[in-house]
Amino acid sequence: MTPDNPPVAAPDAFLGLDIGGTKLAAGIARADGKVLAEARAPSRALEGPDSMIRRLVALGRDAVWDARLGTTDIAAIGIGCGGPLDPERGVVLDALNNPGWVDVPIVAMVEEALGRPTFLENDANAGALAEHRYGAGRGVDDMVYLTISTGIGAGVISGGRLLHGANGNAGELGHVSVDHRGRRCRCGGIGCLEAYASGTNIAERAGMPSAEDVVAAVRRGERHATAVWSETVELLGAAIASIVNAFNPRRVVLGGGVTRAGDVLFEPVRRIALQRAMPQLAAVVDILPAALGERTGILGAVAVAVDRRA
Amino acid sequence: MTPDNPPVAAPDAFLGLDIGGTKLAAGIARADGKVLAEARAPSRALEGPDSMIRRLVALGRDAVWDARLGTTDIAAIGIGCGGPLDPERGVVLDALNNPGWVDVPIVAMVEEALGRPTFLENDANAGALAEHRYGAGRGVDDMVYLTISTGIGAGVISGGRLLHGANGNAGELGHVSVDHRGRRCRCGGIGCLEAYASGTNIAERAGMPSAEDVVAAVRRGERHATAVWSETVELLGAAIASIVNAFNPRRVVLGGGVTRAGDVLFEPVRRIALQRAMPQLAAVVDILPAALGERTGILGAVAVAVDRRA
Repeated sequence: MTPDNPPVAAPDAFLGLDIGGTKLAAGIARADGKVLAEARAPSRALEGPDSMIRRLVALGRDAVWDARLGTTDIAAIGIGCGGPLDPERGVVLDALNNPGWVDVPIVAMVEEALGRPTFLENDANAGALAEHRYGAGRGVDDMVYLTISTGIGAGVISGGRLLHGANGNAGELGHVSVDHRGRRCRCGGIGCLEAYASGTNIAERAGMPSAEDVVAAVRRGERHATAVWSETVELLGAAIASIVNAFNPRRVVLGGGVTRAGDVLFEPVRRIALQRAMPQLAAVVDILPAALGERTGILGAVAVAVDRRA
Repeated sequence: MTPDNPPVAAPDAFLGLDIGGTKLAAGIARADGKVLAEARAPSRALEGPDSMIRRLVALGRDAVWDARLGTTDIAAIGIGCGGPLDPERGVVLDALNNPGWVDVPIVAMVEEALGRPTFLENDANAGALAEHRYGAGRGVDDMVYLTISTGIGAGVISGGRLLHGANGNAGELGHVSVDHRGRRCRCGGIGCLEAYASGTNIAERAGMPSAEDVVAAVRRGERHATAVWSETVELLGAAIASIVNAFNPRRVVLGGGVTRAGDVLFEPVRRIALQRAMPQLAAVVDILPAALGERTGILGAVAVAVDRRA
């Protein structure tokens, strides 16, 4: 080894790519979660997967550039995307929130464009990994993450590992039924938590434009909105009690747009969930807001890259 | 190494001890599940833990003797017992089906009596391990085991490993709620599956002495029993759909006395569960009867010893 040839540290920068229903995002972060660069663009979902992936790759190159790195400095790339998908084969099977995404081999496409090892994960699972590694789930081995926005996604960390299940779809906790004779869900199920407590369904049940409007009306003391909201938090609390009994987590971390309601959500949900869960399991669990906010997508994808590369 | 001192094979015999509400059992088996000896005795739960554990240890010694072994030939001992318990510390916290079992350090007691490394596990988790290793779950990495008898117990194998959760109580799937405004459960929850579909609750809902009587009445076409049974299998199917969505198992294995009903249970439960679970998850799961029958207790305890010693 000569002075002209100094030891080169193994690359510790990861590229995270996040495909949302309204936004594409790319970010560079170190394995410890320190973000070096980030970039965002509208999804324009109607363009279809080829064009969207081309723009996503360009966004990734911008982020690499902004971090003053070259692609060879990137240890691995993670992609978070709505499911169902096949994380092993790296194929998006049928992204519900992006029409036209059927059997899209996104990992192969990104690897060809950027030349670095690439890994795909359901965005809610990626969010769970990110909260576990960098956010509200740090320091515990057993954690459930629920993201309550347009739909309800979830990811489960058990014994320090993300649960995948038989074909990568474990943790669909938005589709745990809270009422076996209840509302029909878009998934085909009956009485799914999502059919009541997702943003879309809260708004629909209250006959208002958005869940935000419902929360505002609750704060003003409007009777109908308050009744809908009471039922919502009761169902959410009941579902979380079932989730606690099923997974025995140390933390349940709640994120997504609907949780911006704050105490008006967390206070009753905590009370109801802990009342209904089995005492020995309720005794060891905390129900907390997610910590990563806007960066969940990018850090989730980075966490996938860190996790799968290891 | 001299001819007087030939190589001794590592012991491949395990002692399994099972503490049920009505029966104590001890068995010797090899790691591959081949049973070498077994012995059973009534629990006599009113005697309390000290006397019961003394008789259990004696039963274990009988089994060792019957297998023509000495205790030094036993690689490890597993104990299956109703929870809640602390598998790490080896303490039964409060066995619901055996009054007086509060903070019983059973692992220390058995280790002192028999001098071999001993491990404790919830009996439903032990049953899940046994079905996974020796029974209807062989060959798959993701499996859920439900035992439907007096109560409803469960254990979950995910990625080849038993889920423990934060304090060893993961997989309490009898206490997943199927109706957030439903029947009160003995656990304190509302609308738990167990509050409808355990043997005791089926009988109570039908106003008959036992679930077996209900099934017999269903076979005779009696109207009230049939209505209760229809609701039972609907709730069981709905709960299994939620369980499939939560864990994405390859197999759901159903055991316990109530499953002796056979097709009158499995046929509608399969149909309802697969109809309600998400299509990508329903596509990969089979719902099967448990394979080990009477030997679940012993082989479960043996599987715990094999698993934890590894």
